[in-house]
Amino acid sequence: MPDKRDMRKLVSALMKSYQREAGLLKIESDDQIDEAVVLDTLEDLRHLVFAGFFTRKRLREDSLEYYAGELLERISYNLEKQVSRALLHKPGGPPDDAAEEAGGIVYAFLERLPDIRRLLSKDVAAAFDGDPAAFSTDEIILSYPGLYAIMVHRLAHELYQLGVPLMPRVMSEHAHTLTGIDIHPGASIGHHFFLDHGTGVVIGETTVIGNHVKIYQGVTLGALSTRGGQQLRSAKRHPTLEDRVTVYSGASILGGATTIGEGVVVGSNAFVIKSVPQRTRVSVKNPELQYKADGEKPTQMEHVQDEYWDYVI
Amino acid sequence: MPDKRDMRKLVSALMKSYQREAGLLKIESDDQIDEAVVLDTLEDLRHLVFAGFFTRKRLREDSLEYYAGELLERISYNLEKQVSRALLHKPGGPPDDAAEEAGGIVYAFLERLPDIRRLLSKDVAAAFDGDPAAFSTDEIILSYPGLYAIMVHRLAHELYQLGVPLMPRVMSEHAHTLTGIDIHPGASIGHHFFLDHGTGVVIGETTVIGNHVKIYQGVTLGALSTRGGQQLRSAKRHPTLEDRVTVYSGASILGGATTIGEGVVVGSNAFVIKSVPQRTRVSVKNPELQYKADGEKPTQMEHVQDEYWDYVI
Amino acid sequence: MPDKRDMRKLVSALMKSYQREAGLLKIESDDQIDEAVVLDTLEDLRHLVFAGFFTRKRLREDSLEYYAGELLERISYNLEKQVSRALLHKPGGPPDDAAEEAGGIVYAFLERLPDIRRLLSKDVAAAFDGDPAAFSTDEIILSYPGLYAIMVHRLAHELYQLGVPLMPRVMSEHAHTLTGIDIHPGASIGHHFFLDHGTGVVIGETTVIGNHVKIYQGVTLGALSTRGGQQLRSAKRHPTLEDRVTVYSGASILGGATTIGEGVVVGSNAFVIKSVPQRTRVSVKNPELQYKADGEKPTQMEHVQDEYWDYVI
Repeated sequence: MPDKRDMRKLVSALMKSYQREAGLLKIESDDQIDEAVVLDTLEDLRHLVFAGFFTRKRLREDSLEYYAGELLERISYNLEKQVSRALLHKPGGPPDDAAEEAGGIVYAFLERLPDIRRLLSKDVAAAFDGDPAAFSTDEIILSYPGLYAIMVHRLAHELYQLGVPLMPRVMSEHAHTLTGIDIHPGASIGHHFFLDHGTGVVIGETTVIGNHVKIYQGVTLGALSTRGGQQLRSAKRHPTLEDRVTVYSGASILGGATTIGEGVVVGSNAFVIKSVPQRTRVSVKNPELQYKADGEKPTQMEHVQDEYWDYVI
Repeated sequence: MPDKRDMRKLVSALMKSYQREAGLLKIESDDQIDEAVVLDTLEDLRHLVFAGFFTRKRLREDSLEYYAGELLERISYNLEKQVSRALLHKPGGPPDDAAEEAGGIVYAFLERLPDIRRLLSKDVAAAFDGDPAAFSTDEIILSYPGLYAIMVHRLAHELYQLGVPLMPRVMSEHAHTLTGIDIHPGASIGHHFFLDHGTGVVIGETTVIGNHVKIYQGVTLGALSTRGGQQLRSAKRHPTLEDRVTVYSGASILGGATTIGEGVVVGSNAFVIKSVPQRTRVSVKNPELQYKADGEKPTQMEHVQDEYWDYVI
Repeated sequence: MPDKRDMRKLVSALMKSYQREAGLLKIESDDQIDEAVVLDTLEDLRHLVFAGFFTRKRLREDSLEYYAGELLERISYNLEKQVSRALLHKPGGPPDDAAEEAGGIVYAFLERLPDIRRLLSKDVAAAFDGDPAAFSTDEIILSYPGLYAIMVHRLAHELYQLGVPLMPRVMSEHAHTLTGIDIHPGASIGHHFFLDHGTGVVIGETTVIGNHVKIYQGVTLGALSTRGGQQLRSAKRHPTLEDRVTVYSGASILGGATTIGEGVVVGSNAFVIKSVPQRTRVSVKNPELQYKADGEKPTQMEHVQDEYWDYVI
C-alpha cells in the first residue's frame, strides 16, 4: 500500500483532474439518472410483459392481478423519479414542473403496454415462422436475443416518442450489451419483426421499417456520411424498408433517401446506397471464388451468385 | 404517481392483454423452467470443470474431493428439477414419469463430465498453439471468450443429445450473450476446436465440425434458405467441415449439402455454397482495391488476393 | 438424485479426470488471481474516473475528496494483492519480492489516472463530434459501449505497459464481453479515439493507432497469418494507423508492416494488406450489384462505388 503521504498526493492529483476534466465529473447534479434503477425497471417491465416466464415462483391465476398491480406500482414510482431527472436534460431547457410532466409521460407510457404486448406477440410469431430451429414460442421468449432486443426497443421507443431524453438510450445500449444488437430508440419498426442471430446488427436513429421484415446477423441500416457531425442531428440519415423486406447477413443499406421497396430481398454482404424497386432481389454480383490446390495456380473460378439465388430465395 | 383509479385502469387493461396475448403469459404451469437456476447451475458446472480457477478461495489438495462432491450434489439436485420440467415440453408429449426420466438423464450427463474435460483440455491446447497472443493456458481459461463458448456448447450439446428440450438452448444463448458467439446446441464439434475472437460467429443446429478446426470472428456456418420455415426442422440445413479446416473472418459457408474437405482453408469474407475438395484454398477472387487521392480520379487498382495467399496461408 | 454409491462413482471419475487433465485444475496455487476482485476493482476505477455518474447517491462537492480517497484506498489494496499474484506468472520466472514489486507498479498505475482521465475526456469529445445521434456528453458517458471499451483499454494498457501479466487481458476480455469490442491490452491508441457502434471490432496486440482515429463496427486490425503460432509472439503482427484515419464498417487491415497513412479513409468491407499512402481513400472496387425481378434474368448491374465516395467521404 502507498503510505499516507503518497496517498494524499494521488488524491490531490485526482482533485486537480476533476477540476480540469469537469465534463467527466457529475457533482451536485439534480439531473443524474440512476442507471441501476433504470435497468431494474427495464427488468420489471420484462416481468410484466412476459408475465410468469421469468419469475422464480409459479405464477397463479388468482394472484395475477396483484402481481401486475404491484409491479406496475413499482415501475411507475421508479420511472417517474428517473424521467423527471432525465427531463432536466431537455435540449430546450428543463420543463417548468419536471415532476408533473414526468407523471404524465409515465402514465401515457404505461397505457401503451397492452399495445406493446400485442406487437411482441406478433414478433414471437414471426420468429417461430421464420426459424426452422425454433422449437416452441416458449423457447423464443426464454432464449432468443433478437426478441429481447426488440422488446427493449419497443419500450425505449415509446419513451423516446414521449420526449424523454437519455433514458431510452441507456435502455437500448443495455440491450446492445446483452445481445450485440444496436437499435437506436429513435428507429420506427413495424409489426412481425424478426432478427435472427442478431450479433452485429446496427439500426440507426432515423430508420423506418415496415411490417414482416426479417433481418439477419451483421446487417447495418446506417448513414451514408457523418462528416457533418452534430449538424446532421435532425436530418433523416438512415434508410426506409417497406413491408416484407428480407436482409441477409452482413448487408449494409445506407442513406436517408434510400428506400427498399416492398418484398425486396437483399443478399448477403450487399452494399446498397440507393433505392431498390419493390419485389426485386439485390445481390453482390461478385462472390466469384478462386480455388487453389497446394502448389498450383488457381484452377477454377466461378460465379456462385446465380445458383445462390436458386437456393436462397 | 398515477392515483388509485388510474392505476386500476392500467391493471385492468393489462389483464385484458394477458387474456388476449396468452402466449406471452406463463401461468399455473408445471413446465416452467427457472432460468436463474439453470444459469447458476451452468456456473457451478464451470467451477467443477475448471476447478480452482474461479473459486474465491485457494483450492486445497486434500479438500478437492469434498469440493467436487458438494458441487456435484447441488448440480444434480438443481438439474433434475429443471430437466423434469423441461421434459414436459417434449414435442411428442410429456413422458410418463418426468422425474424418473430426468434422474436418468442427469446421471448420464454427469458421467460425461470427464470426457468433456478431456475435450476442453484439447481446446485449450488448440487455442494456445493457434494464437501468438496467448501468453499461457491459464490466460486462455481465465479470459478467452471462445473457450467459454465451447465449454458451454460441450455441456449443452450433451443435454441436447440426451433429449432435453429448451434448457440447452437457454444455456447456449447465455453464452451467446456473453461472447457474441452463437452456437446452436445441436451442432456437433470435434476435438481441438479453436474460436479466435469469436464475436459474430454463428454455427447452426445441424452443422458437423471435425477435429482441429479453427474459426475466426464473424464466420457464419448457416442455412441456404429458411423459406420453408418450420417444415425444414429435421433436415440437415447447415454445412459439414472435415478435419483441419480453417475459416478466416467474415466468411459464410451455407447449406446442408456443403462439405468442406479435410485441410481446406477458406479466406476472409468468402461466400461458399457448394462443397470444396480437400486441401484446397478458397478465396474471394475480388478484393480488388481502388485508391483515390483527394480531387483525383481513381489511379490504381490491384488484385491483392494472390499476394494475400502468399502471406496468409 | 443419484444415490450415494452412484455419487461416489461420479466423484471418483472426476478425481481421475483432475489428475489426467491437470492443466484445467488450479490447486494449492499462490498465483491464482481472483477474477471477481479484478472486475470489482475495474468497476471502482470507473467510479473514480467518471466520478458521480454511476454512484447511487448524488455526489456532493465537499465530500468529493473523501469519496476519491476511499475509492483509491480500496483500489490500491485490492490491486496490490492481485498484481502480486499475477507477477508470479511472469515468463522469466517470479520476481524476488512480488509484493514489493506490486506496490511500486500499483502506485505508478494510480499516478497515471489523471492522464487517463485527460485522454478519456478527449475520447468523449471525439464521440460527440463524430456522431450526429449523440445528444450530449452525458449520454456518451452513460451509454456508449465504445467509450466503455476505450476506458477499460486505457486502464488495462497501463498495467500491460507496467509488465503485469494476465490481469490486463482479464479486464479487456470483460470489456469484450460487455461491448463486443475486442482490444488487446497491448495495442497502443492515441487521443480522440472514437469507436462507433463497435460490435465485432478486433484490434490486435501490436497495433499502433495515432490520434483522431475513427473506427466503425466490424473492423479488424489483425495479423496476416498466425501459422507461426507461438513463434510469432514478439513480432509486430498488426498494422499501424497514422493520425486522422477513418475505417468504415467491416473493413479488415492486416499485417505488421501495413501502415495506413495520415488522413486515409478506408471504405466499408475493404480488405487491406499493404500500406496506403497518406490522404488516400481506399475502397473495394466491386460493390457491383445485380438486380433481378421475379422470374426474370438479372437486368441491371452497376458500380456503386464511385457514387459512394461522393456521398460518404
